[in-house]
Amino acid sequence: MSISFISNGEAAVKSNYPPLSGRVSSVYSEVQSSRINHNLPLPSVLRSSFTIVDGPPSSAAGNPDEIAKLFPNLFGQPSAKLVPSDSSKGQPDKKLKIGVVLSGGQAPGGHNVISGIFDYLQDHAKGSVLYGFRGGPAGIMKCKYIELTSEYIYPYRNQGGFDMICSGRDKIETPEQFKQAEETAKKLDLDGLVVIGGDDSNTNACLLAENFRGKNLKTRVIGCPKTIDGDLKCKEVPTSFGFDTACRIYAEMIGNVMIDARSTGKYYHFVRLMGRAASHITLECALQTHPNITIIGEEVYAQKQTLKSVTDYIVDVVCKRAELGYNYGVILIPEGLIDFIPEVQQLIAELNEILAHDIVDDEGLWKKKLTSQSLELFEFLPQAIQEQLMLERDPHGNVQVARIETEKMLIQMVETELEKRKSEGAYKAQFKGQSHFFGYEGRCGLPTNFDSTYCYALGYGAGALLQSGKTGLISSVGNLAAPVEEWTVGGTALTSLMDVERRHGKFKPVIKKAMVELDGAPFKKFASLRDDWAFNNRYISPGPIQFVGPASNAVNHTLLLELGVEA
Amino acid sequence: MSISFISNGEAAVKSNYPPLSGRVSSVYSEVQSSRINHNLPLPSVLRSSFTIVDGPPSSAAGNPDEIAKLFPNLFGQPSAKLVPSDSSKGQPDKKLKIGVVLSGGQAPGGHNVISGIFDYLQDHAKGSVLYGFRGGPAGIMKCKYIELTSEYIYPYRNQGGFDMICSGRDKIETPEQFKQAEETAKKLDLDGLVVIGGDDSNTNACLLAENFRGKNLKTRVIGCPKTIDGDLKCKEVPTSFGFDTACRIYAEMIGNVMIDARSTGKYYHFVRLMGRAASHITLECALQTHPNITIIGEEVYAQKQTLKSVTDYIVDVVCKRAELGYNYGVILIPEGLIDFIPEVQQLIAELNEILAHDIVDDEGLWKKKLTSQSLELFEFLPQAIQEQLMLERDPHGNVQVARIETEKMLIQMVETELEKRKSEGAYKAQFKGQSHFFGYEGRCGLPTNFDSTYCYALGYGAGALLQSGKTGLISSVGNLAAPVEEWTVGGTALTSLMDVERRHGKFKPVIKKAMVELDGAPFKKFASLRDDWAFNNRYISPGPIQFVGPASNAVNHTLLLELGVEA
Repeated sequence: MSISFISNGEAAVKSNYPPLSGRVSSVYSEVQSSRINHNLPLPSVLRSSFTIVDGPPSSAAGNPDEIAKLFPNLFGQPSAKLVPSDSSKGQPDKKLKIGVVLSGGQAPGGHNVISGIFDYLQDHAKGSVLYGFRGGPAGIMKCKYIELTSEYIYPYRNQGGFDMICSGRDKIETPEQFKQAEETAKKLDLDGLVVIGGDDSNTNACLLAENFRGKNLKTRVIGCPKTIDGDLKCKEVPTSFGFDTACRIYAEMIGNVMIDARSTGKYYHFVRLMGRAASHITLECALQTHPNITIIGEEVYAQKQTLKSVTDYIVDVVCKRAELGYNYGVILIPEGLIDFIPEVQQLIAELNEILAHDIVDDEGLWKKKLTSQSLELFEFLPQAIQEQLMLERDPHGNVQVARIETEKMLIQMVETELEKRKSEGAYKAQFKGQSHFFGYEGRCGLPTNFDSTYCYALGYGAGALLQSGKTGLISSVGNLAAPVEEWTVGGTALTSLMDVERRHGKFKPVIKKAMVELDGAPFKKFASLRDDWAFNNRYISPGPIQFVGPASNAVNHTLLLELGVEA
Repeated sequence: MSISFISNGEAAVKSNYPPLSGRVSSVYSEVQSSRINHNLPLPSVLRSSFTIVDGPPSSAAGNPDEIAKLFPNLFGQPSAKLVPSDSSKGQPDKKLKIGVVLSGGQAPGGHNVISGIFDYLQDHAKGSVLYGFRGGPAGIMKCKYIELTSEYIYPYRNQGGFDMICSGRDKIETPEQFKQAEETAKKLDLDGLVVIGGDDSNTNACLLAENFRGKNLKTRVIGCPKTIDGDLKCKEVPTSFGFDTACRIYAEMIGNVMIDARSTGKYYHFVRLMGRAASHITLECALQTHPNITIIGEEVYAQKQTLKSVTDYIVDVVCKRAELGYNYGVILIPEGLIDFIPEVQQLIAELNEILAHDIVDDEGLWKKKLTSQSLELFEFLPQAIQEQLMLERDPHGNVQVARIETEKMLIQMVETELEKRKSEGAYKAQFKGQSHFFGYEGRCGLPTNFDSTYCYALGYGAGALLQSGKTGLISSVGNLAAPVEEWTVGGTALTSLMDVERRHGKFKPVIKKAMVELDGAPFKKFASLRDDWAFNNRYISPGPIQFVGPASNAVNHTLLLELGVEA
């Protein structure tokens, strides 16, 4: 039923870092074992001779003049595309020394990016070395790494998690830190570095690429688009990896809860979903499962909604459903909801000020320091949320928004409003809320077949870009609605994704997060269907992710709709 | 990618009950659709001619004299076993009128029990009628039902949930209610009734059987063992249905969280699992995933542990892991933990008294009414839990134990104790707890292949028992470690599972919940391995339930260990 792996990888550990807690001594489940040898098809362009064709010069997503100043060596460079090559002279087969790092939160498929890089080097630059920096960017700065061998990588193929080399949230920011990264690049004689991360990490990758180029170091840097949140994407990078798997895991749970709601007929399930900045996960889960109510942060923001108006929307649906005989339902809420509500942001800012400088007295005299609008909102909030807003501060004195249990807050506010309507005779039923938060359990699942294949291609393509001497690009695999053999492979200039933000009087380059577009196909499809879902119970239960058989090659709706494939 | 079902079932609705919100107008996911036609093998004894052989007279699980008095018509009746019959005269083919009811919380596979009954009648008593009572036992009392047709049942095959006819928690208890049930049985001219439920519902089924027999009604009653909690089982009924699926769903999530813990290296995940009375779910999930710490309620009770000693056990492991370089981990906690801690029960009882009769003053003078032991415990508890204990009362004035977030309570108590050890120099690391509750999402998932097949056999067997004139038995399918064709089929006298409890001065019959046996094979295996799991990270990630391919025919460890099959 399960197989064990002997610890043949530990020998490769090259540092005094804390014990490597990877798969080397793990017992695998039958499903995990079966995934290791799952075949990973490559796009046909990667399966035979190819050459790299440059596109036209690129610009920036905004403020090109400032981006040009920040990236004097890289700005304007073209994107690159791999095309089949007739020449049988093949690729240059110089041995390479490449480093790879995982940055930020986990996303299913990260191990396959690394497998892809490794296999590219095996296939096209035999004798090359791949170093895995341990624990994220800190591993680069501290030169903590392991040499990745085929024996070491093998048990991680198609497995979830980032534990092959682990990840971290450090950034390479200060001149001193850039210096450390340079020293590591020199010490290991690195030809290239692959940074697997989200928007911040890819910005960082581009800064490193610029820095290395500026210092005439040979080390080139390629990024890879990772985040379950789905908010790192553009025309050339149609999706970030991990989004597909995470949404499928959440949708499985939501679908189960829907069947539960329909079976018991007495609960409203409020499901908060991970994904703070953008509401892509919530939207995708809605498209997969058809909940009665879905709150999309970007819409709340665009319509300048208040907590009261969001509550009223939910209550209106609950009341109308009660009239139809349904006293149950499922409601999806994005983790970052309150970040999208201007009045809440204002209240939090005022509270931060007051807590930093004033005494909070038991009599509540401190409340007089709030503006009247914020005071009104504060008094409107359930007591538990008032307490969360008053108590939990991060080391910088800010509220930890992600720890505020928005789903419980909404349940209480809905309860209060329903009591009011009941007293007015507008609601006669019983309301029972159940709260859920689906988060961590989606970040480290076994990647779907789509994420497995997509990540492998991203990594394999990153190897090709590095071997061709490219730097400052993000690995880009496209045409994803087509069969894998027709997928396109290339790299997009990271500077072309950038804009600047002014922080502390200085311009900082940023890759803008891709938010849910209210005129995009996924939101429009949702918007056209949500009233039907609200009152007619069109629940779909996607069931658990399957690796063989029916639905095993399904792809998320968001991607297909954005590619114009699904109507 | 998905198919729609036309609403061909609504025509069968025979009452003015609220709108049937079943599958008749549902859109199915690809996986749901694929499950409908999943083949359900039958034990070979059910595939050809069989006859029913009675065993020896039975007794009771305890207090046989009292049980005999409570069940004068049924006590002592033998269990029944289906055996192959050479006679080709076949079964009697009188048309039957049978009712079926789902009672209590959902468990994956309930729809297949109904499919099994239906198919038995089709195969062996063509022209029979199957009525589905709607909304649980209340449907019997109010005579709310639908006639189940093959078209109506079809889309529910191998699907999760209880929404085909829905369930409810009412009991048939008072003479008036028994009278209502009789009237329904007479009105529908019922030959039999199948009650699908847990321990309470099967006790109720036996009381109904006794009542009908005592009144010389022809209606016979057969029970079916349902509960994800796994605490309705005995020698003849090796497991209750739904346990397998629910544990696999929770284990998927736990396995994911483990990979997350190992990848980030900085969180302790405290996972509370549904299953209040017994800790079978927690134990099974531990056997499937190998967490660092698992709390088993029955052990806590047997060892007379206190909240402090449970906390200390966790803290000891956390400290030792820190020395080994691991500042992360996964901890499983049964939902009913605090029910197993005598001092907490005592505190809650005192609080119930005080809240019912005294004024709770802000100055805390009321606390003087607590015994010194309870006061000490109360002061030891985190403030949030103090508040939960003070605030949330059910309509009977009792604390709603299931709503107390034990996982958050333990995190806070562990934090406090670690701070103390830090100040003593015994702990130097950082502790970050993350809380999870896995509950509702496991009750309504698509049943595993095991639960699908097991339930179908339970239902098919129940049909055979009814046709043979049996009453007061619980459908019993055994030899479950063998291939399906070798499974045994029969019925066990419900009175033989019973004991009495004294309530309000009267003896009440009860089927004793099967608790985790500390000298049983599952617990012993766990106990022999937990120290290794605590310090050596033997995490297993079972992955999502698969319906075809690897692991699709896996069976839970608890069952296999109890059957002596797995070492």
